[in-house]
Amino acid sequence: MHSLNSLPVLPIVALRIDPWSSTTIKEYEKLFAYFGIKPFNEVLPELSELVEPHPLMRRGVVFGHRDFRNFLQVIKSGGKAAILTGLMPSGKMHLGHKMVIDQLVYYQKVMKAKVFVAIADVEAYAVRKKSRKEVIESALNEYIPNYLALGLDPEKTVIYFQSNYRPEYYRLIQLFSRKVTLAEMQAIYGQDLGPAKIMAALTQAADILHPYLNEFGGHDIVLVPVGADQDPHLRLARDIADRYSNDIRLGRPASTYHRLMTGLTGDKMSSSRPDSYIALTDPPEEAAKKVMRSLTGGRATAEEQRKLGGEPQKCPIFELNAYHLIPDDNELRKLYEDCVSGRILCGRCKKETAERLKEFLKEHQERLNSVKDLVKEVVKPPAF
Amino acid sequence: MHSLNSLPVLPIVALRIDPWSSTTIKEYEKLFAYFGIKPFNEVLPELSELVEPHPLMRRGVVFGHRDFRNFLQVIKSGGKAAILTGLMPSGKMHLGHKMVIDQLVYYQKVMKAKVFVAIADVEAYAVRKKSRKEVIESALNEYIPNYLALGLDPEKTVIYFQSNYRPEYYRLIQLFSRKVTLAEMQAIYGQDLGPAKIMAALTQAADILHPYLNEFGGHDIVLVPVGADQDPHLRLARDIADRYSNDIRLGRPASTYHRLMTGLTGDKMSSSRPDSYIALTDPPEEAAKKVMRSLTGGRATAEEQRKLGGEPQKCPIFELNAYHLIPDDNELRKLYEDCVSGRILCGRCKKETAERLKEFLKEHQERLNSVKDLVKEVVKPPAF
Repeated sequence: MHSLNSLPVLPIVALRIDPWSSTTIKEYEKLFAYFGIKPFNEVLPELSELVEPHPLMRRGVVFGHRDFRNFLQVIKSGGKAAILTGLMPSGKMHLGHKMVIDQLVYYQKVMKAKVFVAIADVEAYAVRKKSRKEVIESALNEYIPNYLALGLDPEKTVIYFQSNYRPEYYRLIQLFSRKVTLAEMQAIYGQDLGPAKIMAALTQAADILHPYLNEFGGHDIVLVPVGADQDPHLRLARDIADRYSNDIRLGRPASTYHRLMTGLTGDKMSSSRPDSYIALTDPPEEAAKKVMRSLTGGRATAEEQRKLGGEPQKCPIFELNAYHLIPDDNELRKLYEDCVSGRILCGRCKKETAERLKEFLKEHQERLNSVKDLVKEVVKPPAF
Repeated sequence: MHSLNSLPVLPIVALRIDPWSSTTIKEYEKLFAYFGIKPFNEVLPELSELVEPHPLMRRGVVFGHRDFRNFLQVIKSGGKAAILTGLMPSGKMHLGHKMVIDQLVYYQKVMKAKVFVAIADVEAYAVRKKSRKEVIESALNEYIPNYLALGLDPEKTVIYFQSNYRPEYYRLIQLFSRKVTLAEMQAIYGQDLGPAKIMAALTQAADILHPYLNEFGGHDIVLVPVGADQDPHLRLARDIADRYSNDIRLGRPASTYHRLMTGLTGDKMSSSRPDSYIALTDPPEEAAKKVMRSLTGGRATAEEQRKLGGEPQKCPIFELNAYHLIPDDNELRKLYEDCVSGRILCGRCKKETAERLKEFLKEHQERLNSVKDLVKEVVKPPAF
């Protein structure tokens, strides 16, 4: 068993990119203060007693939760746990997306949880006004193959299009419409709320809650690992679950919240700016070049950096290593210390990171090739 | 072939209960003036060239239509026609409901059309706040058996619960949400429009339009026979169909509009007032008593009535005969003339009507017993 005590010199705060200072973090603080999200580190000891926490958890990337203890309780007592995630097929799948899949794979392998992947093709069409065809093709050719290549076990995973599922799922959407008011949804999603957003929101509530139904396995808890911006859906789903406690076999979902990745350009990692992200299908050499061009937490001059040390907590390259490329805590700690002490400068660090990235992409893309034929066996696309 | 010319002395207007004078009829006139509904008698000649029109059509009970000519065109050219109706399981099924089924059976037998019956359990739950269990049981034990006993052919009928159908149907609901605005729905359904009503309205649009999809038979036209109060759903479905003309195989539905039955108490025939209706499962003797207690179009005294004649156009008993109990036009015309001339008074007329009704109910209830076991073969109820 892993114990947190083995990481005494790894300052979790220092590994929290942009810790507690930027406006982003102020948003995170609001989540704690206003919405009842709890710091994840309060449940780390309990998780550690059970299994080794995932690196993203140990390193504070997963920073918050709701009712994670209930999830652990189900695992401990041998109950049935489900993990739910939604994916919005849009552009290329990149390392920002990978964080969620890594968690899914972890829960599946380590906790024996069943994973549900909702392809949000309805939201993509109705709210984001995307073309049906592009969305469906992007899910089938880009997202799902990458999910499988990242290690998701098709045997223990249900992957479905929101527009092509079973009647009990749609029944939930229909029934939920009775017990949610327009005013309540406006309070959560804003005033500008038409039929499309209402449909998308009720659909997401069904995504989150349907694994409780006997028809979908009768799970004892659903855990939803999300980026911090997705909390409104969780709040709605929790409220709805409470209202049906006497009528339908539903329960309050648990959730965890992770930080969003910083892009290599210093702002958010976004599908709309290719230089900001590393796509999982980027040719390794091209990805390496993006790393070499990236912003860092380095100082103005080499001399200054040797004296003051770098600032890994502000560095997208350090983030790449911490989130994705260095699974070993000791190795990551060494990099951190070498950086803050000025022993390693950005040039060398970037080169080493680029090597790690190339290696990862090469292996990933080999796996990708080997799973492509699996896709049609694991998900049934809608005909229109 | 039947020709309208064989009914020269049967004044259609006289057979229109409450013709063109009451507020109800003013509402009907509004339908013509504001909403583009056309008088049904303008298509009667074309229909008559093809087949014998249904008594409800010949007698002006079916009084309006949209695009009925397109429907006839499909029939003439050997295309695929679907008839769609929705049923709201609520209380006992009575003669007011029977009018729709009679039309379904007619289209099925005479026009070889496929019939779709949507059980509006979602609307019943979400908008009318009924209990799921009661709605489902009412559909299975009361409505569907009566539909079958009235002659609907299970082989040529699709009966489904809105909450228990196929994914392509739900996909329509989801996709429709993109192309309808809140303001537009408010213009049709009123300002007080929350998630439940929005869901019910989009669901009704999918009910109406789904038979166009290849997955449901790829019909060339859908015809919806409805009471005049149901037109908003048709308007929405037509607008939606137009917006998808490039994307999805949908079409503009045709529709017909029939008058609502007058209750035996003189107001609307309503499930909430047992004395106002004849239920299809009323014991025949009890139904006969309701007839004997009914309001009529009779005069204050027998003497006055012998002199002035009765007023069949105001008479729920005459309506019973015209809508349900006297299929033969000559026989009905004779009753009409005997009444307006004062040759028959209400006492005798009621007795004869009660006898006809008893006979009908006796036979119907025998058929009902023989079809009850069929129900579970023709419709799959939702488990919750």
